[in-house]
Amino acid sequence: MTQDELKKLVGIESAKYVKNGDIVGLGTGSTAYFMVEELGRRMKEEGLEITGVTTSNATTKQATELGIPLKSIDEVSHVDILIDGADEISSDFQGTKGGGAALLFEKIVASYANEIIWIVDESKMVEKLGAFPLPIEVIRYGCEQLFHLFDKKGYQPTFRINNEEKLVTDDGNYIIDLHIPTINNPIEFAKELDTYVGVVEHGLFTNMVNRVIVGSEHGVKTIEVR
Amino acid sequence: MTQDELKKLVGIESAKYVKNGDIVGLGTGSTAYFMVEELGRRMKEEGLEITGVTTSNATTKQATELGIPLKSIDEVSHVDILIDGADEISSDFQGTKGGGAALLFEKIVASYANEIIWIVDESKMVEKLGAFPLPIEVIRYGCEQLFHLFDKKGYQPTFRINNEEKLVTDDGNYIIDLHIPTINNPIEFAKELDTYVGVVEHGLFTNMVNRVIVGSEHGVKTIEVR
Repeated sequence: MTQDELKKLVGIESAKYVKNGDIVGLGTGSTAYFMVEELGRRMKEEGLEITGVTTSNATTKQATELGIPLKSIDEVSHVDILIDGADEISSDFQGTKGGGAALLFEKIVASYANEIIWIVDESKMVEKLGAFPLPIEVIRYGCEQLFHLFDKKGYQPTFRINNEEKLVTDDGNYIIDLHIPTINNPIEFAKELDTYVGVVEHGLFTNMVNRVIVGSEHGVKTIEVR
Repeated sequence: MTQDELKKLVGIESAKYVKNGDIVGLGTGSTAYFMVEELGRRMKEEGLEITGVTTSNATTKQATELGIPLKSIDEVSHVDILIDGADEISSDFQGTKGGGAALLFEKIVASYANEIIWIVDESKMVEKLGAFPLPIEVIRYGCEQLFHLFDKKGYQPTFRINNEEKLVTDDGNYIIDLHIPTINNPIEFAKELDTYVGVVEHGLFTNMVNRVIVGSEHGVKTIEVR
């Protein structure tokens, strides 16, 4: 099976957890893409009725094309279920996200979700976080100073680049990727990152996920976390 | 003496700490205004040479009109001295800032300043912080959810309004003012505020100031803090 086929498999599986009438947080990225497609199919073919809350301009565009009715996170009382991808998930189910540069809105929607499902292929399941760069969304003003600060700390920062310019997020900020081979204590490191002035949000999603759906050559595995 | 005359007095006094060749962080607000004016005067009349790093669009405009050469915080190696106002200063010299809605850029510049001076009239010197609303700069997406969260915590939030619309900061965010009568532990509360998703920055400036210049009916008092 190709990686795309695995992504499609878990995307379709995750959509089964969406019930009629749900307010659904729609994640961003290549795996979440297939989940959103499947929800569109279920609406058309099975008469499923949902309200979507998107986490990026890209997902808003996709959902709109599929005819999924959308509301902003500020127009709903709550989110029943959020389904999203992840870049890495550790053995104790801490995650990193932001490879798609949508971590800020993803985390905002996640903060108000009653249930969170992450959908990944098995390459994302790791013992400890770190092999995948950790994205930090930062205010543009002062970003070079912050970059130097991260550099001095040994975090091996690089600016996320798009078309030879610094990538600009949906909220108008930059992304600095940290290259830390092993993040031994994600909860402590999240607290540290929160304290830096100019950091809008970081890609560590700690103690958040309720269920992980993993795709592999052997099929789909669903792990109940909390 | 009127409050404006007090502000002018401390503004002029603080400008004495600026030396030839300094990279100077220029604060924002009605008291910092007089300090910037005085630096402009010293450049014209005394040949003082400085580079300014501003903390808001308003101060950038004022400094440009005065002919003060400006650089972005990202174009300088460091800031020698930052002079800024404050909304409240506690007896242990923790401060709140953001009444002028410029707290984000003020705090970014403050983070890289070798020396920080706050200039205030004596009405700003309090035993404990809290009487003045505490501004929180927040991402627009999710701001209503965050507002409800602060409300549930009893922080009595209000959105900062300008011309009957939510005020938009220089960075494009909203301000939520918290009305907490007494902030008993600013350092702990700062840590709590850092953890909220959607909070870009808050108005608690803890363990930051080196010198406070206070204006009162009895004259100008300079307090060396650290």
